[in-house]
Amino acid sequence: MKIKLINPNTTARMTDTMANCARAVAAVDTEIVAATSTMGPPSIESWYDESLALPGLLAEVAAGEREGVDGYVIACFGDPGLFAARELARGPVVGIAEAAMHAASVIAPSFSVVTTLARTAGMAWHLAERYGMKRFCRSVRATDIAVLDLDRPDGTARRLIVDECRRALEEDGADSIVLGCAGMADLGRAIEDAIGVPVIEGVSAAVKWAEVLAALGLATAKRGEYARPLAKRYDGPLADFSPRND
Amino acid sequence: MKIKLINPNTTARMTDTMANCARAVAAVDTEIVAATSTMGPPSIESWYDESLALPGLLAEVAAGEREGVDGYVIACFGDPGLFAARELARGPVVGIAEAAMHAASVIAPSFSVVTTLARTAGMAWHLAERYGMKRFCRSVRATDIAVLDLDRPDGTARRLIVDECRRALEEDGADSIVLGCAGMADLGRAIEDAIGVPVIEGVSAAVKWAEVLAALGLATAKRGEYARPLAKRYDGPLADFSPRND
Amino acid sequence: MKIKLINPNTTARMTDTMANCARAVAAVDTEIVAATSTMGPPSIESWYDESLALPGLLAEVAAGEREGVDGYVIACFGDPGLFAARELARGPVVGIAEAAMHAASVIAPSFSVVTTLARTAGMAWHLAERYGMKRFCRSVRATDIAVLDLDRPDGTARRLIVDECRRALEEDGADSIVLGCAGMADLGRAIEDAIGVPVIEGVSAAVKWAEVLAALGLATAKRGEYARPLAKRYDGPLADFSPRND
Amino acid sequence: MKIKLINPNTTARMTDTMANCARAVAAVDTEIVAATSTMGPPSIESWYDESLALPGLLAEVAAGEREGVDGYVIACFGDPGLFAARELARGPVVGIAEAAMHAASVIAPSFSVVTTLARTAGMAWHLAERYGMKRFCRSVRATDIAVLDLDRPDGTARRLIVDECRRALEEDGADSIVLGCAGMADLGRAIEDAIGVPVIEGVSAAVKWAEVLAALGLATAKRGEYARPLAKRYDGPLADFSPRND
Amino acid sequence: MKIKLINPNTTARMTDTMANCARAVAAVDTEIVAATSTMGPPSIESWYDESLALPGLLAEVAAGEREGVDGYVIACFGDPGLFAARELARGPVVGIAEAAMHAASVIAPSFSVVTTLARTAGMAWHLAERYGMKRFCRSVRATDIAVLDLDRPDGTARRLIVDECRRALEEDGADSIVLGCAGMADLGRAIEDAIGVPVIEGVSAAVKWAEVLAALGLATAKRGEYARPLAKRYDGPLADFSPRND
Amino acid sequence: MKIKLINPNTTARMTDTMANCARAVAAVDTEIVAATSTMGPPSIESWYDESLALPGLLAEVAAGEREGVDGYVIACFGDPGLFAARELARGPVVGIAEAAMHAASVIAPSFSVVTTLARTAGMAWHLAERYGMKRFCRSVRATDIAVLDLDRPDGTARRLIVDECRRALEEDGADSIVLGCAGMADLGRAIEDAIGVPVIEGVSAAVKWAEVLAALGLATAKRGEYARPLAKRYDGPLADFSPRND
Repeated sequence: MKIKLINPNTTARMTDTMANCARAVAAVDTEIVAATSTMGPPSIESWYDESLALPGLLAEVAAGEREGVDGYVIACFGDPGLFAARELARGPVVGIAEAAMHAASVIAPSFSVVTTLARTAGMAWHLAERYGMKRFCRSVRATDIAVLDLDRPDGTARRLIVDECRRALEEDGADSIVLGCAGMADLGRAIEDAIGVPVIEGVSAAVKWAEVLAALGLATAKRGEYARPLAKRYDGPLADFSPRND
Repeated sequence: MKIKLINPNTTARMTDTMANCARAVAAVDTEIVAATSTMGPPSIESWYDESLALPGLLAEVAAGEREGVDGYVIACFGDPGLFAARELARGPVVGIAEAAMHAASVIAPSFSVVTTLARTAGMAWHLAERYGMKRFCRSVRATDIAVLDLDRPDGTARRLIVDECRRALEEDGADSIVLGCAGMADLGRAIEDAIGVPVIEGVSAAVKWAEVLAALGLATAKRGEYARPLAKRYDGPLADFSPRND
Repeated sequence: MKIKLINPNTTARMTDTMANCARAVAAVDTEIVAATSTMGPPSIESWYDESLALPGLLAEVAAGEREGVDGYVIACFGDPGLFAARELARGPVVGIAEAAMHAASVIAPSFSVVTTLARTAGMAWHLAERYGMKRFCRSVRATDIAVLDLDRPDGTARRLIVDECRRALEEDGADSIVLGCAGMADLGRAIEDAIGVPVIEGVSAAVKWAEVLAALGLATAKRGEYARPLAKRYDGPLADFSPRND
Repeated sequence: MKIKLINPNTTARMTDTMANCARAVAAVDTEIVAATSTMGPPSIESWYDESLALPGLLAEVAAGEREGVDGYVIACFGDPGLFAARELARGPVVGIAEAAMHAASVIAPSFSVVTTLARTAGMAWHLAERYGMKRFCRSVRATDIAVLDLDRPDGTARRLIVDECRRALEEDGADSIVLGCAGMADLGRAIEDAIGVPVIEGVSAAVKWAEVLAALGLATAKRGEYARPLAKRYDGPLADFSPRND
Repeated sequence: MKIKLINPNTTARMTDTMANCARAVAAVDTEIVAATSTMGPPSIESWYDESLALPGLLAEVAAGEREGVDGYVIACFGDPGLFAARELARGPVVGIAEAAMHAASVIAPSFSVVTTLARTAGMAWHLAERYGMKRFCRSVRATDIAVLDLDRPDGTARRLIVDECRRALEEDGADSIVLGCAGMADLGRAIEDAIGVPVIEGVSAAVKWAEVLAALGLATAKRGEYARPLAKRYDGPLADFSPRND
Repeated sequence: MKIKLINPNTTARMTDTMANCARAVAAVDTEIVAATSTMGPPSIESWYDESLALPGLLAEVAAGEREGVDGYVIACFGDPGLFAARELARGPVVGIAEAAMHAASVIAPSFSVVTTLARTAGMAWHLAERYGMKRFCRSVRATDIAVLDLDRPDGTARRLIVDECRRALEEDGADSIVLGCAGMADLGRAIEDAIGVPVIEGVSAAVKWAEVLAALGLATAKRGEYARPLAKRYDGPLADFSPRND
């Protein structure tokens, strides 16, 4: 089985970290194809960044269809372009926020999201609502670490995240933690050890979710909203993106 | 990995069918332990049936803990005793309605549940709400087939279910179907072929969900609501169920 | 009129206290039949305890039907088995959380629930949602007193409850208090005197609710979800619980 | 105990019918004081009618406080002025829609409201939301009978209401019926006999609710929103309504 | 175009302040007709005050219809009588809370309401719910200034409001402020300057909203709930309010 | 005042129609700057189309900031890129669905959306939820007309839309109609004449909303979620979109 993990930002070292996490949990017969977007923002920290990440992301999905991919993971906690990607894909497409929140709601009565910049907290709440997970979400807490500072070798990020997780447990009564950024993919276990409650990291969860759905033969519903985009001719620099008939 | 599939009713032939479905999708290194409840109702078709199914179900979870089980599936669409089972279990516990609804919400914009008796439709709606899946659920439709008539060899059940699925697509605008009874576990593929939209069957979905969560090292949160029941001495015929200290 | 108050735990002294509260408010022509469950947990402090309390509770409802009972009160704040009991009963069945929340919503713009162990707070929120009362509920606050320690003669429980009620008024802006445990049945008036806002105690409220509904000739709806359980043969130690045709 | 039933419209024969219903269910030691508003609309069939019914209604509450009334019933299905009345009253104030919806939610999984004019259906939905009862309400159905035509001797009203109730059961799946107008107070039993599911009539329900709350010593919360109106001097023709210090 | 601004309390100096604000923002061809209610409370600080403000308010709407008014503003933050006014009016009727909340939801991800007395906070939440704006509302905060003390020359009110706004930003995470009283109409700019986030004042917003809707030819829908009240004869001192046929 | 109307698709004749509608309602001192996106889809009929419309749309907002624009209208009923645009803009940014739904909720108790392709109905529901307008929305109904067929001279589109509007009134009980596509901008009045209830067309509504907000000095909140995107260097063909410091 071929699962394509798409990093919708252009920072290849984040893709590498995530691909390692993905391969560590993938089934033996699952091939992880990891792709870094070739255009747009190097990190997604605003609605604007997210908007400009979409062409690069969707190009990777379109390529994936040609490559015979069985399922996709969108590896950014804002789950950008999730519905558009589903229109393109035959197989399942899973967002890392979506998979993490689903997993958290199964193993715990509630979770808090611990994320990077405060300005992205609203996005996390939007997703929680859209997935029906708002009722499980106690809070979305920001550490005010920039995405690209998460992997600084000095460990500051981990320390700040652990502190914020503890506040979520004490002040908001959360029973588990969802890590709110793809860039935290390799920190899950260490944080769980530090705080003593389940910590859900979305990249690995989404990879397994996509694998499971594909294994069960569950493809994206092509009746209605997720049908293939109608063929039409796009203009200007984005003409290459024009949807074609199958 | 050891996944225990518990049929909370006492009908062993339903357990056999479900165990077959489970083994067909389980990973090569997953052992499916299938158990039939040893006490209570032969089928669960009311709140009363569900209540009396709980002791037998929870006995199987308690036994599972002694047997080193890594994850559990509660194989009845009412997901009976889900929260109580989570208090007992170290590993994840997944309900088949829960897993089916999660899966449906990932691959389709909406689903309808097609179930057995009309009187159980309210239960399905309660679950949809509790899991945050109400927003994806277009309708819960009953076929008025008794649970134990589902596997009659004459094919009536399948025909009635297919008809009801079609009405869900046309009248309610659903994009996918969730089969609302564990007794339909072996019908999913045939119905999907007949109606042409994804059909999600909960037993196989829940088995994979439990497997994934266990594989990711995600255990049930033991802080708060899902903590082990306090040790105390129960009275009368249920004294054997008394929770003990670990 | 005969109202049966069922204590779903096996602690008879709690039943006595509650029966006294019930008789103090019952109409002159109302007979209060107080029953203590004969099997299961001595106090209900987890989902597991609640699950194992159901057989004993439902046996008392079934007995009540043979005894010509006109209405029932389930005297535990988790309102265990409420829907199953309604399937068995001809007359109305009222939960003490349900009655208390309804009463609070009529006399005050909002209430907070003050309960025993923190792990049961989630149950209270579930009930508030199920009854439509979430919008009135400011908070569910735990005192971390075990149920069976509530009536210790030293008055500690009352002091802790009063303190927690005051915090609910000040920090959460509640206008009234719902006592979140049947074991607090005799404390209502004293706490109200101490804190100066209405304190609603569910046992007496539920007894009056059941009395009123029965007096109005309002029986449980037997169309649909609350219809009598279908007759079927249960297996094993629970065979005596098999539903029979009327 | 003194319960004041206030008809907020000026049609005395409606008050008489409702007072009879009230007295038929009141406890032996309950005195029903029935009052007809002395100003405003003869029937309430719009937001405008309701607005102009408020002075007359509130005058009766203010008078009730001087008369030592223990609890109030606002006998119009729009529950006009409920919150303002609670500010004036020491004892509980119950609306007939509120009491009927609470009662229906206890004895049945769902209800439909059958009312008079279609233009008032929105009001019923507003109330259902405000009381948290929307989740139990399957539909609000209008018969397009004017309020003052309900008691025409030819029985047309009853026939139309029964027909609409049957549609609510069949088309909307309701399990019980709430009668949506105080003018239907004497029709409950006959309709219940005709349709075979519980029919809840709000006047008798509210009288019993008010009686119960008063009997339990539950007064209106005077902290916050339902505190006495601040004393101030009103102007013009409404000067007599000026709130005074106690 | 003629926009009628109705102050539903009887305090003419508040009307003057609001009329000035209205005229400062109205289009050149818009005539602002400002009216002070001729009966009822001098300020609206309870449900009771609001109820008694309705006759005076609705008399002004009825007069407006005779005067050829194109649109109305109800200039009290409780938006009293909004639906009744819409039944009377051909043109649009806008409440100041409604307009302010709509505006806030367009320019900011969230708002907090800063109002006068704590007892009116519940009203603001009711309105937020009714308008669908609850999801944007972080908090409703009271300053405990009486309405008629807002314009005291010593500046106390402004200081207290600014302090409360700051707490809303810091403690509740609001991104903008809605001023929760018509009596704050002239304070908006000064407070915005002090706190550095957008401050929305409802009187000017509602005047522009009414102007826009009228300019677009959007009249109140006369099908269904907002249809003209049925003609009927009112009794007693309110007989002059009897609705007549057009 | 300068209001920029951005057509996020590349079809200039749609921009012309919309600009005419905008100019017909704009204030005398308002300059309407109409822009057609220079890249991407010629019509937006899927999530994919919408995603690829974002770069062109956001380029126009960025240009608008350099041109001194006071407010923006996003002239496509999916309100694409609304939040990203708000991050870029100093002045208010209004979506046509947002403005139309707000307007409808003021003049009518409910509305139905009548749109083009069935596959876009889900988007309209998402917007209704996000704006808090779901409670007013009775239905979203599709005519299955492609966007670019709306202005065919044979009048087919108008006929189909009128038919669908009538079904919304009769079957769903709507009191007003919101036109669900920018391409219907010039049809509003004719449809209103045909069906006799208010018809709200979003382009003109949004132009006035933007004008009003700008006139009131209400700029986009720059604290939190709508703050300017952080400066960073984008890669590949989208490098020109890199956000810069102000």
